[in-house]
This record gives sequence, structure tokens and C-alpha cells, in this order.
Amino acid sequence: MKNLVIIGGSDAGISAALRVREINPEIEPVIITADAFPNFSICGLPYFISGEVAAVENLAHRSAAEIENEGIRLLLEHSAISIDVKAKKVAAVDRKGAVKHIAYDTLIIATGASSIRPDIPGITYPGVFFLRWIPDGTAIDEFIKTKKPESAVIIGAGYIGMEMSEALVKRGLDVTIVEFFESVLPSVDTDLGNRISETLAKNGITILNNISIESIGKEGSKLIVKGTKDFSISTDMVLVSVGSVPSTSLGQSAGITTGIKGAFKVNLKMETNILDIYAAGDCAETWHRIMNKYTYLPLGTVAHKQGRIAGENAAGGNSEFSGSMGTQSVKIFDIVAARTGLNGKESLQAGFSPVSADFETWDHKIYYPPADKLFIRVTADKNTKRILGAQILGAYKTEVSKRIDIFAAAIYHSLTVKEFSNYDLSYTPPLSSPWDPVQTAVQNLEKFWRTT
Amino acid sequence: MKNLVIIGGSDAGISAALRVREINPEIEPVIITADAFPNFSICGLPYFISGEVAAVENLAHRSAAEIENEGIRLLLEHSAISIDVKAKKVAAVDRKGAVKHIAYDTLIIATGASSIRPDIPGITYPGVFFLRWIPDGTAIDEFIKTKKPESAVIIGAGYIGMEMSEALVKRGLDVTIVEFFESVLPSVDTDLGNRISETLAKNGITILNNISIESIGKEGSKLIVKGTKDFSISTDMVLVSVGSVPSTSLGQSAGITTGIKGAFKVNLKMETNILDIYAAGDCAETWHRIMNKYTYLPLGTVAHKQGRIAGENAAGGNSEFSGSMGTQSVKIFDIVAARTGLNGKESLQAGFSPVSADFETWDHKIYYPPADKLFIRVTADKNTKRILGAQILGAYKTEVSKRIDIFAAAIYHSLTVKEFSNYDLSYTPPLSSPWDPVQTAVQNLEKFWRTT
Repeated sequence: MKNLVIIGGSDAGISAALRVREINPEIEPVIITADAFPNFSICGLPYFISGEVAAVENLAHRSAAEIENEGIRLLLEHSAISIDVKAKKVAAVDRKGAVKHIAYDTLIIATGASSIRPDIPGITYPGVFFLRWIPDGTAIDEFIKTKKPESAVIIGAGYIGMEMSEALVKRGLDVTIVEFFESVLPSVDTDLGNRISETLAKNGITILNNISIESIGKEGSKLIVKGTKDFSISTDMVLVSVGSVPSTSLGQSAGITTGIKGAFKVNLKMETNILDIYAAGDCAETWHRIMNKYTYLPLGTVAHKQGRIAGENAAGGNSEFSGSMGTQSVKIFDIVAARTGLNGKESLQAGFSPVSADFETWDHKIYYPPADKLFIRVTADKNTKRILGAQILGAYKTEVSKRIDIFAAAIYHSLTVKEFSNYDLSYTPPLSSPWDPVQTAVQNLEKFWRTT
Repeated sequence: MKNLVIIGGSDAGISAALRVREINPEIEPVIITADAFPNFSICGLPYFISGEVAAVENLAHRSAAEIENEGIRLLLEHSAISIDVKAKKVAAVDRKGAVKHIAYDTLIIATGASSIRPDIPGITYPGVFFLRWIPDGTAIDEFIKTKKPESAVIIGAGYIGMEMSEALVKRGLDVTIVEFFESVLPSVDTDLGNRISETLAKNGITILNNISIESIGKEGSKLIVKGTKDFSISTDMVLVSVGSVPSTSLGQSAGITTGIKGAFKVNLKMETNILDIYAAGDCAETWHRIMNKYTYLPLGTVAHKQGRIAGENAAGGNSEFSGSMGTQSVKIFDIVAARTGLNGKESLQAGFSPVSADFETWDHKIYYPPADKLFIRVTADKNTKRILGAQILGAYKTEVSKRIDIFAAAIYHSLTVKEFSNYDLSYTPPLSSPWDPVQTAVQNLEKFWRTT
């Protein structure tokens, strides 16, 4: 029987193992995982910290027993420390320091990423947190329980910053968000970010943009966060959420080539430069379907896809990653922001000639109360009329997240603005209009070609 | 300036006129409409009758003034009575009996459909209703207000029957549904219909299947509905909702050919057999994209699409109808049922070799309460592995209707089961899973090819 070893038991690793079992049930993959939390939904940590998830164990997609019942062997709390590429062996050390050597015929590296830790004074003070893995989340929860902080500063207004601002407000903290860019959630356009800021402000959050943090100091039990523009604030705790870096040192020392932001270079089969070694998930580069080039995009959805493909190929199948389109959605208090494909700026950078148009309409027939407004921005290429991207803002429970997915499907197929009206989308007055708002938004974009 | 005349001011007619204005703003289309309700959302009538829509006027997609502001001329309360194909003139009579002759260069017929009126004794008794146009809805509302019925029998458990059962329960009536087929909502599979029946029953509705109604009698103020299997029930009112027939007599007398169920034959440009005469909407046949043949499918979404295409071509553009896939959704109390493409039975009839699999899962991560179960049935072709159809049942507000639209997009593009996992769909724990339930449902179908 083929020895198939996977390093990493989060999204990509588990996805790979499950796919191996489907493709070739004779293979029993071994997963080496550094912590005791295989297949946990780390995306759920903000909801654990908010108190909405009762226990951190609830975040498990599957329990260890369920994983093993699938025919997957788990080596928990074992840190892989080296890969012997010639002998085809992985060395892993357990919590007691005992080293095991695990032979592989095929190896999948899914070591994920870690939080970026900016090199500023005070970043290691107690009360300064990052959020990536389960222990990060339980540490924050424990701190709130025992130290009873009244205020928090969140550095970085990306997805985690957004979700954590809501979580900390729900725990009763006074929250300030400090963002380097000119608006929150920089993955959407500035004016959409500003609309999101209105929601944050309505919920009592202070938002400060265009500020770069320079130091964290300490005064008694208080942390003093300082930044550009004479920014200074005294707070009880700090969350630093400024992105992530791929965890690749193990693979690098085995000779695996890295590229963008230090992530493993892979081909569409998720093969690295070393024979029989695959990489997948947040430790690897990601092919972007619309930019038509590699990028670094550490997302759970991408990790699942890449893991599945690595698993399929490692088990003797044949599959290629068709590329990410950067589809993302996030719930922030009572609104949802979602995006897919490229916005105007990204389209320009990718060499397109973008045109964008905004459309605001009701999520369903206004006569059936209550209806809510959807804000939809669509970007297309001036020359080919191909839809390149979409951004939607709307109320929670107005199908924003699956509406962006209709765009994701269309963009996957390089659909043009005109063809988009061909989609036979569902309609019932409590949930849509005879033309779904996504179609009206695209039809509205047509005016661009009519007037020029 | 070209004379462009449209007969019919509902979905297809208005859609056509609006598109004419976009394509060629020099044309000012004239719409001849028999009633005073142009561009009303007749799909909204159940919500008017339920009391959720305060006034019937609210059902207007656009007011008459808004339509005229778009550069469209309305001839309200004028019934078109004849078309002189040689002289290219339409004769229309107003409420006072005055006849106008309106010249056209291009004519679009969008006369819609009317309710099927089964040929059974008693069908014309007061208290027996149909629901198609605005006056039908106001008549039912008026009857409930003035006669204060305590019970109602709904004959036919299609979309209107479903929505009206909820509406009449909301108005305090004791509702019985009688259906000819073996389950309610026959456009979904029998066992899904039975699940819907459970929801109806929970809301106090009596459902009787496999019964054909044979007569309606009268005893004092009561109506006696009788059918096969010795069915007999005494009730205060009856709604007959057993489908619709295309309204084509005007066009037929002008020589326009009809086909399936008496609907106008059209090509993909929505042209009839007579030069310069188009037909669109519920009066016309519909090309079915997956069945690959013409059918009769009177749906608002299809009417809007066909109207838009007829308008574009009539205005000098060039567009073809890409086909319907029968996508539909309906809210029934606290659940939503949706379908697109073909189910197993329809797939067989269309010459495919269908395989179907069911998948039940949470609409989003279960750890973020409350999550609700989605039931997803996917049908694919055994030989080509192409996805042919999907049916989803789930709670209201779990994005069922836009989840079916992801399938609608995929099926539009003839996507295979395997490729469906390539779609980069959005994920955030409060709204989905790293693989959206629609993808897990399709992945689950793969087992069929693994085990055979």
C-alpha cells in the first residue's frame, strides 16, 4: 500500500485526506498535525470569542474520531521538523521530545500560515493578541474573562478585524479600529468601505484610517498604542490582524521553491518542484483565474479546493486547480459585504479596461415587507464586455452571499454583460424580482456602451 | 419614425417596450392594454389577499406615469380586437365602444394567458374564484371582507395554490387543498411535495391528493365540491388554480400559427410566422434549454426575458432567447422550495440517463446558531456527468432561492459534476461552509460513478 503523508490537519490537509479516501480507498493517509485541533474551523473563532459559540470544541468540522472513522490516521501534537527528500521520510517530534520517522511515497504539505507580527516595540506585551489558531482564540477569551478589559484596539480592518470588532462589542468592550489604508475592509472599494464604517460607527466603534502603528507601550495595566499623525490611545487590550504569512520553513529546508510572499510555488496540479511532494492551502501560491497569474490568497475556500486537488492527484487521480477568483463574504453586525473577481483598480492592474456601474435596489419586491436595499457594483471590460467582478453590500439575510456567487459562476465562465440576462434565475416576490437585482445591476452597466 | 405597437401591458409587453427605448430611443412604443393595470406584479396577488400588501396599487412595478416618463405611450383600457396584417393596423375598442385603428411597422403580441376554467358543473357559481389578473385578486379580497367566509377549498396545488393556501390561512380561513396529482407542488418530486405537505399540515391545512374534481354544487350559502373517490366537502369559497392557457385568439384570427397548448409558435428571435409580428410571454411557446425543445412555461421570469428579446429585435437589434430552464422558487409559510433544470423523471423523458442523489446539511456552520437544514437533490446525466437539475427545500431566509440560481448558472453552461467544485463560492460561517452546501451535494453525487 502506498504511504501517503500529509503535514497539517487544517482545511487543506483534511480536504486532501478525504479526497484520497474517495479516489483510492486502499490508501490510508497519515496526517501529522502540530496541535490537538485537526479540522477545526478557525474562521469560527470570532464567533467563539463573541460568545455566540458556546464551546471552542463546537468549532470542529469533524471530531478526531470522525476523521479516523473515514480511514485517516491522525498523528496529533506532532511537529514535523524535517523532510528527508532522498529517503522519503518526515521526522516529527511529539510533546515529550520523542522523534518519529514517517516514510512516505507521496507527501502533501499543508502547513498553513501564521499571523503577521509587525516588527514594532511592544508587540510581545501581554494583552497584545493575534488570531489565527485555536489557542489564539482561547487566549483572548481567557483574557476577557479574567482581566475584564473595558477597551480594545484592533489594528487592521480586514475580514478578521471586522468580525472581531463585532465580537468584542458583543463582549461589552469599547472598540477602536486603526487601519493603514484609507477605508475599512480594503478588499472592497473605498466608498463601500466607508459605508461599512457607518455600520461600525452605529454600533459604537471608533474607526481611524490612514494610520500606521509604530509602537505599543505600557503604563500600569494599560497599553499605549501609538502611530503616525500623532495617534496615541490607551487601551486594555490590542488585537493585531494585519494579514498572514505562509508557514514554509520546513518545506524550504527540504528544497521546495517559494515565490510570492514566500509561499510555495506550485503548478495547477499542486505539485511543488520536488517529485512526489505537493503543497496546498495557505502555505502555497494560488492561481488567480481572472488575473491570469499566481498570487497569495490565504482563504479557507481556496485551501479546501487546493487540498482536494492535491489529494486527488496524490492518490493517482488527475485534477487541476481552476483558479481562485477571490470570492469572499463577511457579516458585520446587520450587514453583509461580498465580492468576487476584480474591482476597478485590480482590473486596471491586470491589464483590462474596466468600466464599473453602481446599482441600488430592493432585495425583493418592495410591496412584500420588509424589503432591504442592496448596493451592487459591477465591473466589466470595456473591450470584451466580459464581467470581471462584483461587489455587493446589503442587509444580513438578503441572500447577499449567494448573490455574489451567481457573479462568481458567471465570471468563472467569462460571461459577457449581455449574456448575463440569459441566466434563468429564480423569482418569487418575497425573495427577488422577475429580474434578480444582480441582473438589473448588470443591465444597468450596458448604458456604458450605449452612450459611447 | 418607426411605429412600434405592443399588445399587452404586463411583464412581456412592458419589458419589450423598455428594451425598445434602450436600443433605439427614437422609437416611442405604444402599448395597448385591456385593463388599467399596466406593469402590475400579478405574482404579488397572494400577498395582497393575505393582507401583507396594504393596497393593490402597491403591486405596480412602475406607475403609469413612470412608464410614460420612459417614453412609452399607454393606451389603457383598450381591448385589441383585430389585426389587419396587410394594412398593418390594430383595431382597439375602449370602454365606451369607440374603435381606434393603430398603425404599426412592427407589432409585438404579449397578450398573456388566462386561468384554465375546467368544464365542470357549478364552475360559474358566485364564490368560485380564479386568480390571474388584478381584478381576480380584488374580487377575492372583497368577497372575504364582505362575505366573511370561514372555509375555502383550493383546487390545484401548484405555485398559486401553495401561495394562496398561506394567504387564506392568514386571513383566518380553514383551508383544504385538493390536488389531482399524488403530491402537492407537482413541479418538484413526490417526496419533496410530501415534505411540503408536512409544513402545510402544521399550519392547519388539509391536503387531499389523487382527487379529480367533478362538480361544484350549492346548498344555501355553501358550495359543495365533489370529486372522485367519493370526495365531497362543503365550503364557503373555492379557488380554482389548475394552470393557465395562452390568450391567442386575437393573433390566431390574424393568421399566427400556434403550437404547444395553443401558444404562438416563435423562433428564438421571438418572431412569429407573420413578418414584423413578434410574440412574447405567456401567450408564446418557450424554448427549453435543457430539454432542447419547445414547451409551454408561463412564468414571469420567462416573460421578462422574451419581452426584452422581442423588444430588442423589434427595435433593430439582434438577440436570441437562450432558453428557459424552468427555474422557480416559492415561499410556503416558513419554508422555500426551489427547482431548476430537469428532475429525474423529466430527464428520462428528455432522453438523458439520469442519476439523482440527496444531500441534507446545514445552511451554514452549525456552530453559529441558528442554522437550518437544507435538503438538496441533484440530478446529473450518467454518461456525460453533466448536471441536469436541482431541487432544494429549506427554511425561509437560508438563501435557498439564490442557491438554486448557482445551479441555474452551472446548468446553463452544461457544467459537469466534477467541474462544479471549481466554482469559487463565498464563505463566511454565518452564511455558508467552506464548500457551500450546493457543492457538497454535487460532490456527494460523485459516489455514483465511484461505485459502479
